[in-house]
Amino acid sequence: MLRPMQDLFRPAEHPDLLVGLGAPDDAAVYRLDEARALIVTTDFFTPIVDDPYQYGAIAAANALSDVYAMGGRPLLALNIAALPPDLPPTMITQIMIGMAEKVREAGAVIAGGHTIQDKEPKVGLAVVGMASPDRLLTKGGARPGDRLILTKPLGTGCITTAAKSDQAKPDDLVEAAAWMMRLNRDAAEIAIEVGVRAATDITGFGLLGHATELAEASGVTLYLDAARIPLLPGAEQYAAAWIFPGGSAANRRAYEGGVRVAGDLPEHRLMLLFDAQTSGGLLIALPPDQREVFAAQMAARQAPWWEVGQIGAREDVPLVVHA
Amino acid sequence: MLRPMQDLFRPAEHPDLLVGLGAPDDAAVYRLDEARALIVTTDFFTPIVDDPYQYGAIAAANALSDVYAMGGRPLLALNIAALPPDLPPTMITQIMIGMAEKVREAGAVIAGGHTIQDKEPKVGLAVVGMASPDRLLTKGGARPGDRLILTKPLGTGCITTAAKSDQAKPDDLVEAAAWMMRLNRDAAEIAIEVGVRAATDITGFGLLGHATELAEASGVTLYLDAARIPLLPGAEQYAAAWIFPGGSAANRRAYEGGVRVAGDLPEHRLMLLFDAQTSGGLLIALPPDQREVFAAQMAARQAPWWEVGQIGAREDVPLVVHA
Repeated sequence: MLRPMQDLFRPAEHPDLLVGLGAPDDAAVYRLDEARALIVTTDFFTPIVDDPYQYGAIAAANALSDVYAMGGRPLLALNIAALPPDLPPTMITQIMIGMAEKVREAGAVIAGGHTIQDKEPKVGLAVVGMASPDRLLTKGGARPGDRLILTKPLGTGCITTAAKSDQAKPDDLVEAAAWMMRLNRDAAEIAIEVGVRAATDITGFGLLGHATELAEASGVTLYLDAARIPLLPGAEQYAAAWIFPGGSAANRRAYEGGVRVAGDLPEHRLMLLFDAQTSGGLLIALPPDQREVFAAQMAARQAPWWEVGQIGAREDVPLVVHA
Repeated sequence: MLRPMQDLFRPAEHPDLLVGLGAPDDAAVYRLDEARALIVTTDFFTPIVDDPYQYGAIAAANALSDVYAMGGRPLLALNIAALPPDLPPTMITQIMIGMAEKVREAGAVIAGGHTIQDKEPKVGLAVVGMASPDRLLTKGGARPGDRLILTKPLGTGCITTAAKSDQAKPDDLVEAAAWMMRLNRDAAEIAIEVGVRAATDITGFGLLGHATELAEASGVTLYLDAARIPLLPGAEQYAAAWIFPGGSAANRRAYEGGVRVAGDLPEHRLMLLFDAQTSGGLLIALPPDQREVFAAQMAARQAPWWEVGQIGAREDVPLVVHA
């Protein structure tokens, strides 16, 4: 009765599933017709901040981000919630409104969901978006010569970990939460408009983990310039005190074999590049001839971005980090 | 900052969301164009049986059922899983294969998902399906004169509750599990083909809870004939011993005000009609002139069904149960 999973779903039997079998990307992509493809994704997690509204907003921004990272536009979302029966109703309302306001900001609509009772809260979304099948942002679309663009600073892992043991400055947590609540909408829409074909979003595997996946899928090597990688206020201080979530150490173990560090990079600065992020930015491979129009359109929307490196032909390792 | 939810999503701003705002139905429905509408739903729960393969298969059949209950055809699904880190890998594999085989049987494909660590396992699916916007099965489409069709026997709540305290006969649990693993595909496809417009699936609110929702949404009264309502082997015995899950008592409290019992129905038989079901059958409102072709097509596929009552004009209560 039990057959291996790869026997159950053969790509040839699902020709319209453009992304979803084989190498994982940020979300599944299903072709509806010549002009339209569905983007489908789900994400949910335990509280990352104490404030219930912010928790909901971050969970929603994080789930919506997978649609943006594929070049899609969110259409509708379903709430996914596991909540303790003794959680005050006002708190549940604030979580749900945090999620709903982000979905609305994304131009989508919450159309239902499923809630169960659970000891520890978990919330998130299942999201359905729409994209053009010939204008997707995939991990495999990066080419030598492309510039590497990052749209949010790093450090949400070490800052929220510091906050859990009351070691974070309140202002640092406020700033980190604001970035986590921020949608990746502007960069995704502009990237699609200018003709970008490769991107991913930075979440649990950290910058170097997700960068590795992009490099491997595209068959290229990414050259990152550590000095140009933006960090959240306070991140370097907590990193120097070696306050990291467990996931950051796991990321380093999983990915450091494919990373060559050129020059003298302090240990805690390297570790920050592995820091597990929540609702991080997009990492975009921007062809150089599109750089000017990308910059102009991002500036017109006052959308933040940093050029953090570039892409070359595949070397012995997928990632090279210059100190 | 906090606005009430109904201010965030106004139906007029989402004209293509045919079902999802306002009165809840089995799944959200989003119109893509004249001929096609997306059906989107999510469901997940803690183990209902000990066998990991069966648990996965039941969770998947249950989640897929919401697509069938709206008249849709499942296209793709995402796994949703919260699993204890110490669960043996073979068990996780069996749960996942149980889910995958059901998705495959439904003609759909698993295209990704999200897994987190959790103390108590929860698994299920987010499912995207496709339907014709003018051939949906909604709760609001039932009309006086329609016959009431049920496609699975009742009693999964009391049988699985009996099994948890080792009071269930093994054969009874095997039979209940087989029904819970069964897809609602045949009845849904045939209902759509013959022109049915109203259905719902029987899950946590029990037969009378879901029947009430259908009656209220359609503005009709449902007349159920208790003697014709199918019961799983053993269900009546456990019911007579008053072995019910907490949800069944909650259903009775919530819905009994709208139920008039005509004749002499034993308490435990009435309670079985409120029994919280997992992956239950479809409750279909079948126009009488379609009864013959529906019966012939169901017979051709050897698909089980029972005629359990009929629909009349709205009376003082939504439900009348004849003993």
